[in-house]
Amino acid sequence: MSKKIAVLTEETIHDLEFWYPYYRLAEEGYDLVIVGPEAGKSYTGKMGGVIRSEKSPSEISAKDFAGVVVPGGWGPDKLRTHKAIVDFVRDVHANGGVVAAICHGGSVLVSARILEGVRATSYKSIKDDMILAGAEWVDEAVVVSKNIVTSRTPSDLAHFGKALVETLKKIK
Amino acid sequence: MSKKIAVLTEETIHDLEFWYPYYRLAEEGYDLVIVGPEAGKSYTGKMGGVIRSEKSPSEISAKDFAGVVVPGGWGPDKLRTHKAIVDFVRDVHANGGVVAAICHGGSVLVSARILEGVRATSYKSIKDDMILAGAEWVDEAVVVSKNIVTSRTPSDLAHFGKALVETLKKIK
Repeated sequence: MSKKIAVLTEETIHDLEFWYPYYRLAEEGYDLVIVGPEAGKSYTGKMGGVIRSEKSPSEISAKDFAGVVVPGGWGPDKLRTHKAIVDFVRDVHANGGVVAAICHGGSVLVSARILEGVRATSYKSIKDDMILAGAEWVDEAVVVSKNIVTSRTPSDLAHFGKALVETLKKIK
Repeated sequence: MSKKIAVLTEETIHDLEFWYPYYRLAEEGYDLVIVGPEAGKSYTGKMGGVIRSEKSPSEISAKDFAGVVVPGGWGPDKLRTHKAIVDFVRDVHANGGVVAAICHGGSVLVSARILEGVRATSYKSIKDDMILAGAEWVDEAVVVSKNIVTSRTPSDLAHFGKALVETLKKIK
């Protein structure tokens, strides 16, 4: 399996939920690629940091990626309006890659229609959306269902990072 | 050795440099304690996040801690003006604990007088201060010298986290 992992960015993505998994996976030797709706664009995170996209979905192929991380914040509300982003997430999942979402990141998984029958969690405000998308929603720090890893909030990041690393190691 | 690790906070501490090591060490099972000049005070990070201190140095004993992390940002410039904070860092080091600093965090190590003969790095702007304090300054992502771990900037966080975990495991 590839060592490439996409981490999604958009305006008002949650900075910590972006950078914690980014650096944690870098520590494990993964090749991180920052993917946004447009390539080479500087997006401003919820906390004000700049997260510049390296690639847009049209420039990459889901089959080259071992996984994709969808951080939270308000960014997922924008990410899910881009068909190419949603298609990329669905294709990574369809190809056996890992899809990880924290907080509002679950909204992109809802739009990608990959939650049917999946035990998962999210920020509490989108619980109903997750359930309507077919998820078995639970209130836990991190939930791993096959190749889908989900967490609730930034305070779950230690659990999210650990589960993400373990799940990626299993699929290689 | 104790599993307690202090992570220092102050006004305008760098949020990512605080939270990345915080969650990374939580993942390893360490008991994180947020320490600031005053206990129970909400400090606002450089990116705008709130980092609330749990303890002040007067309420804790350095001998109970396996290590202390000094994040960067503008916070270290304030942290080093508090004698109790500087004493705490020096005492953790004297007791054989790990002292880790990233970016401007090195300024607190300068004030704690623990850099004599130590190979170390920091944000480039405080290089001269580090050298005057006796450090052998090098431009590397992370430098480990016995129990002192130092890095340059947020982009070194993956290296910083890995070296911090490895160094803590050696001292137990």
